[in-house]
Amino acid sequence: MSGLPETVLAELVGALGEDAVVTDPDILAAHSHDRASFCAAGVPAVLLRPRITDEVQRVMRIAHRHRVPVVPQGARTGLSGAANAVDGSILLSLARMNRILEIDTVNHLAVVEAGVVNSVLSEAVAEKGLFYPPDPSSWRESTIGGNIATNAGGLCCVKYGVTRQYVRQLEVVLADGELVTLGSRTAKGVAGLDLVGLMVGSEGTLGIITKAVLALRPAPRPALTAAALFTSPSAAMAAVEKIMSSSIQPSLLEFLDGVTVRAVQAYRDMGLPPEAEAMLIAQSDAADAARLVTEMAGICREAGAVEVAETDDPKEAEMLLEARRLVNPAVERLGTTLIEDVAVPRSRLVEFVEELGRIAERRKVIIACPGHVGDGNLHPTIIFDRNDEQARDRALLAFDDVMAAGLAVGGTITGEHGVGMLKRSWLSTELGPRVTALQVGIKRIFDPQGILNPGKVW
Amino acid sequence: MSGLPETVLAELVGALGEDAVVTDPDILAAHSHDRASFCAAGVPAVLLRPRITDEVQRVMRIAHRHRVPVVPQGARTGLSGAANAVDGSILLSLARMNRILEIDTVNHLAVVEAGVVNSVLSEAVAEKGLFYPPDPSSWRESTIGGNIATNAGGLCCVKYGVTRQYVRQLEVVLADGELVTLGSRTAKGVAGLDLVGLMVGSEGTLGIITKAVLALRPAPRPALTAAALFTSPSAAMAAVEKIMSSSIQPSLLEFLDGVTVRAVQAYRDMGLPPEAEAMLIAQSDAADAARLVTEMAGICREAGAVEVAETDDPKEAEMLLEARRLVNPAVERLGTTLIEDVAVPRSRLVEFVEELGRIAERRKVIIACPGHVGDGNLHPTIIFDRNDEQARDRALLAFDDVMAAGLAVGGTITGEHGVGMLKRSWLSTELGPRVTALQVGIKRIFDPQGILNPGKVW
Repeated sequence: MSGLPETVLAELVGALGEDAVVTDPDILAAHSHDRASFCAAGVPAVLLRPRITDEVQRVMRIAHRHRVPVVPQGARTGLSGAANAVDGSILLSLARMNRILEIDTVNHLAVVEAGVVNSVLSEAVAEKGLFYPPDPSSWRESTIGGNIATNAGGLCCVKYGVTRQYVRQLEVVLADGELVTLGSRTAKGVAGLDLVGLMVGSEGTLGIITKAVLALRPAPRPALTAAALFTSPSAAMAAVEKIMSSSIQPSLLEFLDGVTVRAVQAYRDMGLPPEAEAMLIAQSDAADAARLVTEMAGICREAGAVEVAETDDPKEAEMLLEARRLVNPAVERLGTTLIEDVAVPRSRLVEFVEELGRIAERRKVIIACPGHVGDGNLHPTIIFDRNDEQARDRALLAFDDVMAAGLAVGGTITGEHGVGMLKRSWLSTELGPRVTALQVGIKRIFDPQGILNPGKVW
Repeated sequence: MSGLPETVLAELVGALGEDAVVTDPDILAAHSHDRASFCAAGVPAVLLRPRITDEVQRVMRIAHRHRVPVVPQGARTGLSGAANAVDGSILLSLARMNRILEIDTVNHLAVVEAGVVNSVLSEAVAEKGLFYPPDPSSWRESTIGGNIATNAGGLCCVKYGVTRQYVRQLEVVLADGELVTLGSRTAKGVAGLDLVGLMVGSEGTLGIITKAVLALRPAPRPALTAAALFTSPSAAMAAVEKIMSSSIQPSLLEFLDGVTVRAVQAYRDMGLPPEAEAMLIAQSDAADAARLVTEMAGICREAGAVEVAETDDPKEAEMLLEARRLVNPAVERLGTTLIEDVAVPRSRLVEFVEELGRIAERRKVIIACPGHVGDGNLHPTIIFDRNDEQARDRALLAFDDVMAAGLAVGGTITGEHGVGMLKRSWLSTELGPRVTALQVGIKRIFDPQGILNPGKVW
């Protein structure tokens, strides 16, 4: 039943104890996939829930000896299928390894186990006047280990960058069970190749991340906000270009296209007019935020915004941000969603968004397009009826078209969601054969038997 | 004479033309080493000075076919011997590939060839209101290619980070001459493993960097400065700890120990009192810099500073920074220098600096200790008479002691200078055998014949 020889299962039970070894088919089924649409999930053999690093090592030694595939999992909030089960695999959940081991206010560091939830860490460091910037929208559920494995982004990247910038040191269990420490706790370090950076974003293919030393920052001021409505996406993009090529450094700059604005308004009446074809929300948390927010509001007006609100009251600022927070539930109401994650150079945004319109028309699908526009990272979301097979096929064609359009304007197929299974067939198109071969070569150095998350990324 | 078969030399001349192929022994000797002390340099066969990427590819194809070692070089300002010649090697200078190809004010990017000098780029982008932060003290000579190959740091890292954070995309000629593009021009991207980050700091062992797309920032405000003198290093370190665990984010925070302060004062009379055993220089370029600089000055006073100067005049600020700028020439006057580059957690600085005193005493050497203290990255500089063989031996023992002391407090053997030849024997002590093996495995994936900068790093 388990897909593993009874002896292997017995070894696992011996290594971890009964309560950490789950074979109940319903629980396995529930743990066999993340939140990606259209990614096949295999039937796993067993779900393991270790509590300490030593147990993870024991698991990997057994898996290595018997060549059993291992799929590491955090909260399974990923959107690319990187945490999906492989047939006969061990699902290795790090969720129980959820201790914050240290918050160091002098060195501005946190030491955490892989299963700590992002928001738990964020709140714990905030209590000490510190800030862990990476804020993927899954932050209330997703784990630091998963954030690191996918190099998670979020709303604040436009000023504070992505997860990779905040990872100093990693404790990693290798494919054969050996424990290594990569990187250094220090602010700087160049002792050999950057294996920490290599591990960040490797989607569970190189090793099992069990512990991380993370860099923190002083807590920023509460952000002030401007929000603007436009009658065309290109007017909004013109404002983005102007803001981002000025000396203003917004701490957030988000875009909602017309489809998204109307979906949000239908979801909750926020007084957003039906003729709005684009919305920008901009924040600053700088010392001179009031001046910068007024400047950004002015740029939006000059670019043709039909309505601009700005506030220097942090509570009102949160309200203006509410439209952004409602995007996911609002858009999901429109139908089944297939979420894209293309990032393009900011100067090519207008072209790219215009092409999205043509794709929607050609493929007869609806495309909502919210996104972290300050980074050029959009989430074109293809909406369709999953019970209509033809609509489903058209959605998949549109999905490919969007990636092709992103690459055509010098972009990347994935800004922050990762490759997983969803974009695997497109990765070599972006990288080319030789770079793909280099990556696969590195993978083999870490995992010569190919037991770590097989079938993902390449 | 050249150490290469005549036929190979003829191939190189055929590929690059006479003027790009140098075999004059005096010129070769002058190009056979960087600025590291105590690193052996071999006798190179030839110095090549290509002008375009295609020529670099031709060189690597020939080198690959004949298995000739290749040592890539920028301005040879490195301090670890990574650019030192290997016997019979090709010295591959990128210095003539020095065009700034693009400064993109919308996407805040610069596209440069590897041989562009850091200060040339910095000044070119400053004219457009932009900022390329990495500022190694060699910035007026060192090249962007060399900065990338060593992941160069500098004075502004404490706020703006190191070179790695500013490299988006690289054009690299691989060991067999194939040209690849790594990374993406976009602000974010997670399409596969981070090979750009891997290349940064790889010291010429993985490929020849020919072109880079660099991220820029809006130009900061002119910085305001505070400078403080203390009668003990530990008082200064207490101030550092206080500043860095506050919400202030200095844009520069530099330390000079007593030996360094006295060397600077001897070099140029700046009115620095002989009893000063430590000096801190702190800057802020934030919107509320005046307030922050006053706060930092206050922290220094509370920590026992005997003299504190602060200024909100950018010109006076530059004068206060002058002491820092004079460190290198001033210290070099004291004797032959062997420059260390240990980085430690900030909270361990006092311990580390006290240990330096004990090492100096035990080994009967002088150790000056300037450093980027905000990052915990110090440059303990061992001073001795190179004509006195015993002094030289003691200096080398002290050098090892300093690295051991750095590792003992959780630090790294190199914060920003790299491993090269100088710290090669120490690298595996820091990394351990398995991580070393992983790094060497990756090296082999990129360079199976081992022709790229052999004998360096590992």
